[in-house]
Amino acid sequence: MASLLPKPSPLRFSQHRSHALSDSVAVRLRCLPSGNRRVRCGLINPDGGKLVHLVASAGAERDALLREAAPATGLPRIKLSRIDLEWVHVLSEGWASPLRGFMREAEFLQTLHFNCLRMPDGSIVNMSVAIVLAIDDSQKRSIEGRGRVVLLDAGDKPVAILKDIEIYKHNKEERIARTWGTTAPGLPYVEESISKAGNWLIGGNLMVIEPIKYDDGLDKYRLSPADLREEFMRRNADAVFAFQLRNPVHNGHALLMNDTRRHLLEMGYKNPVLLLHPLGGYTKADDVPLIWRMKQHEKVLEQGVLDPETTVVSIFPSPMHYAGPTEVQWHAKSRINAGANFYIVGRDPAGMGHPIEKRDLYDADHGKKVLSMAPGLEKLNILPFKVCKLSI
Amino acid sequence: MASLLPKPSPLRFSQHRSHALSDSVAVRLRCLPSGNRRVRCGLINPDGGKLVHLVASAGAERDALLREAAPATGLPRIKLSRIDLEWVHVLSEGWASPLRGFMREAEFLQTLHFNCLRMPDGSIVNMSVAIVLAIDDSQKRSIEGRGRVVLLDAGDKPVAILKDIEIYKHNKEERIARTWGTTAPGLPYVEESISKAGNWLIGGNLMVIEPIKYDDGLDKYRLSPADLREEFMRRNADAVFAFQLRNPVHNGHALLMNDTRRHLLEMGYKNPVLLLHPLGGYTKADDVPLIWRMKQHEKVLEQGVLDPETTVVSIFPSPMHYAGPTEVQWHAKSRINAGANFYIVGRDPAGMGHPIEKRDLYDADHGKKVLSMAPGLEKLNILPFKVCKLSI
Repeated sequence: MASLLPKPSPLRFSQHRSHALSDSVAVRLRCLPSGNRRVRCGLINPDGGKLVHLVASAGAERDALLREAAPATGLPRIKLSRIDLEWVHVLSEGWASPLRGFMREAEFLQTLHFNCLRMPDGSIVNMSVAIVLAIDDSQKRSIEGRGRVVLLDAGDKPVAILKDIEIYKHNKEERIARTWGTTAPGLPYVEESISKAGNWLIGGNLMVIEPIKYDDGLDKYRLSPADLREEFMRRNADAVFAFQLRNPVHNGHALLMNDTRRHLLEMGYKNPVLLLHPLGGYTKADDVPLIWRMKQHEKVLEQGVLDPETTVVSIFPSPMHYAGPTEVQWHAKSRINAGANFYIVGRDPAGMGHPIEKRDLYDADHGKKVLSMAPGLEKLNILPFKVCKLSI
Repeated sequence: MASLLPKPSPLRFSQHRSHALSDSVAVRLRCLPSGNRRVRCGLINPDGGKLVHLVASAGAERDALLREAAPATGLPRIKLSRIDLEWVHVLSEGWASPLRGFMREAEFLQTLHFNCLRMPDGSIVNMSVAIVLAIDDSQKRSIEGRGRVVLLDAGDKPVAILKDIEIYKHNKEERIARTWGTTAPGLPYVEESISKAGNWLIGGNLMVIEPIKYDDGLDKYRLSPADLREEFMRRNADAVFAFQLRNPVHNGHALLMNDTRRHLLEMGYKNPVLLLHPLGGYTKADDVPLIWRMKQHEKVLEQGVLDPETTVVSIFPSPMHYAGPTEVQWHAKSRINAGANFYIVGRDPAGMGHPIEKRDLYDADHGKKVLSMAPGLEKLNILPFKVCKLSI
């Protein structure tokens, strides 16, 4: 499954520096080396202790799934939207560990009310956005009483089987209000994926037939959390700092990322590695398309603005909610699963303008505040910064 | 401060019984006696380990506060609404322990996003509704730069001093959406207390001058959590089961409460005591007024429908949000602080009709589901029941 990591030629480390982080890096730092001695902590544990992997192995396992997914078996079939497929991708690779499929009602309710899930052993993991699959009344009628369904892509090709299914109500208004803190019309994800969706949600355990690919020339950048962990281990990283973005890298970003590395070195880490992690799923129409962003990110490495030796560029397959303080938790939590133990958070993360009022939807400082308080993210070191106004 | 507990003459225990609880009492029972031997657990610990008490002692402490609150000192003054005063009452007696005053921003954000607060030792307490004090722009201007303010009742009498104050934005839309799961117009608490309130919130530590009284003939029923704990200890209760209601007791309620006691006895408890706990703060216009409800509750005890020997009737001073699954957590958490280790939850607790659609605002089962999942309520035994449709 692992794609090859792009390897631009190593170039010189940028000398630009900023001191913007100086006052903030002391926030919630754990697992630190004492003095200047190197202490290997290994990579941070994924949520739930084990990285979830829901893709069948090639061979007998995949073949069995394919046979079961064939029309002849008569299993009910659900066609996935583009966003649904992105969530299958996210779930299949364990970005949402310990989730093993689309949320059941107990997970959905905990997500809406508490932004976290209680594990059977009593521990808490963060989970702030609902990863759910909606169906309409007629689909519900055709599925009820059946234990599993086949999920199809846009071309009617079977992608996965959802088993041990559970169907429950999709109260859209409540979901939107509790996730976005508003029900104003015009929220991009809501318009794209919720407003017209069915009134029911179907949860269950996913069995994915083969790795999700998009054949857009960018699949090589879509490293799974397992791929990333392997790469960080290969590079002997003793700290991994993740930077989520959905726009081109600009000078402020680059200064910040280089400065963060410098600070981590000063703190005693010997080999901090940057995970430059553009979001690759659904984004609103006026965001820069992924293909252009990736070209720009490649240039940034080629030109040595960021050091390719200590930078891993990869695509985060999640769709974008634009849900501010709620969503930034998801952005951070998923990077824990990919091995990051430091997370850089900027001004108004995952924010946008209010859809019908002349103001930002979220308080610009709430993202980093909420992130620093979020249950289940205690093990992550949050690095707030204030270089300039960024849109990440 | 303790009021005398009303003591109707003991009458015979009702023989009516229901088996409605049979399937549910096994849910989350902890601290149980083994076999039939009596095991004293003591009362459940209040949240944060210590019951908060914010009322000055009569004498030097109260006098000092009164002097400080006098107009001559020039401290800024804020006039409280009826609901604000009810929250001062709630806070002053420790129903919201460990809160020590109106919420600061960190508490407000945790409440909105996580329905719980992290304590300095890393433990979690539940806190699902925002207990906040709103001020407008001109009040903010007059207060800024000052460390404390005087809070006045409707007659301009000083009630409390709020110290170490913090002023932050009151994003009403976000508060409403995250608390109620809707922003539809017509939510009673929102119309009464939020829509017209100021755009800022002021948090801080409360110092209350004397116990809050209403002089409505019902103050004798307003027992504080400390009073209730004392009463439960006096009665030698080894289990306290709380029943929140905001309507007259009907036969279904009575059957349920008696049946709960029977089940607790069967489980090995020797002296389970019922806390019959009508909500006494703000309710919507079409709810039965408190004075009539209390008359009815008195009759229920006098007539022996409930056994006065094993029942404590008291008024819970909180205002009502009608926020369903979010609010029921507050109703349960506050009763932990009063010593209850069992909480009875019915269908659609704290629910109401959707203000503009022809349906219930909340799924009737979400209240008990959310309650059973809520962070910080793990120590409480949740007793769901389905006798009939109740409005509590």
